[in-house]
Amino acid sequence: MTYKLVLLRHGQSEWNEKNLFTGWVDVNLTEKGMAEAKRGGELLKERGILPDVVHTSLQRRAINTANLALDAADRIWIPVKRSWRLNERHYGALQGKDKAETLKKYGEEQFMTWRRSYDVPPPAIDDNDEFSQANDPRYADVENAPRTECLKDVLERMLPYWESDIKPDLESGKTVLIAAHGNSLRALVKNLEGISDEDIVGVNIPTGIPLYYELDENFKPTKAGEYLDPEAAADAIKAVANQGKK
Amino acid sequence: MTYKLVLLRHGQSEWNEKNLFTGWVDVNLTEKGMAEAKRGGELLKERGILPDVVHTSLQRRAINTANLALDAADRIWIPVKRSWRLNERHYGALQGKDKAETLKKYGEEQFMTWRRSYDVPPPAIDDNDEFSQANDPRYADVENAPRTECLKDVLERMLPYWESDIKPDLESGKTVLIAAHGNSLRALVKNLEGISDEDIVGVNIPTGIPLYYELDENFKPTKAGEYLDPEAAADAIKAVANQGKK
Repeated sequence: MTYKLVLLRHGQSEWNEKNLFTGWVDVNLTEKGMAEAKRGGELLKERGILPDVVHTSLQRRAINTANLALDAADRIWIPVKRSWRLNERHYGALQGKDKAETLKKYGEEQFMTWRRSYDVPPPAIDDNDEFSQANDPRYADVENAPRTECLKDVLERMLPYWESDIKPDLESGKTVLIAAHGNSLRALVKNLEGISDEDIVGVNIPTGIPLYYELDENFKPTKAGEYLDPEAAADAIKAVANQGKK
Repeated sequence: MTYKLVLLRHGQSEWNEKNLFTGWVDVNLTEKGMAEAKRGGELLKERGILPDVVHTSLQRRAINTANLALDAADRIWIPVKRSWRLNERHYGALQGKDKAETLKKYGEEQFMTWRRSYDVPPPAIDDNDEFSQANDPRYADVENAPRTECLKDVLERMLPYWESDIKPDLESGKTVLIAAHGNSLRALVKNLEGISDEDIVGVNIPTGIPLYYELDENFKPTKAGEYLDPEAAADAIKAVANQGKK
């Protein structure tokens, strides 16, 4: 028996389009992002990979991506579970800042360290910053909610949810969809594929294209993850790698 | 302490617009229906009535209404629960039939009996009918899924879910949103307000306008349910009453 897992990164958001660091700021999808999500659902339907349960972050761009994709796949009725542990990386004091300006201000080395290093977080955000989530009711029950994160932090807060909520759904034979974010999905892929701290830096996950895994009984992929639109995925991976350089 | 409950009937669906009996057929919202849902969410936000949990049927027109309303109210991230017990009344062999033609074919008395009587269901739908849900995977785990229903049947299958899942959420102090259908909400209102079998026939619930209740510790309304847009509700109630007569 193999377990079936689909990862889906949200489509273009309002701040992707504006080239701002987003993190936990709750921006919505653009029209393009909504179209990407629907296309993602159509790909699932065409391939007959039909989710039995969906897990999302607490952020609207991932939730709406899940909703649009599932409606397109005729699966909008499946059970839903959400957790802040699937949220995007918290981008600390960079949240709301322009990526190109940040690059110019701090230089490429510092910029790429914050963006891509495994274990160096940006400076923490101040609770009074307009882009802080300190008073967001959806995180009221989260103890010690992050004020900044590196990818290592994301992995560490994501894994408990993978163990407690996602694995049991896979073990019960359900096809699981996870609708989340570039960095929470990178963290998951790192863990699934056993990618090193160094190599994960070069891994990008494109938006809106379902990434399908079959896992063995030890939750290890039986083969490489498969993008359901491989050509679009290859093009998009290049585009993500160039972000912030325009 | 009072409990806070919001009922929301889905906005216009593709078959409302075409004047067909819908029941369990899984048609989607029209553009107008989507706009109604968003407006419903804006009304919740304006009034500061912010759901902590949402319960929906398994039908996409109610689910998408909930999603659009909650996104407009900045509450898309709340926990979601779904049950077939909140579905629309199963309309039996009338599903997919034109309302005006059905009125003409069977006469007003039979037509109004099927539409409005409390305890007379239409003929059961055949499992091979194109509008049957006999093979719909979302109902695979439902024992003895209905093939037709009267309002009494709806009440009887809805109440166990009210007791098992909705009441506990209210008791824990959560503001509960139920996004559902004309008849599943009529059944709930009948139960809440203690409306007689005779009088419920004349009760219509308009689409897309949140109906807000405060309940006492015995789950009885402390005053009449309040539509958050009373004028639009009054107009819409008249329009529903005239359905099928055009």
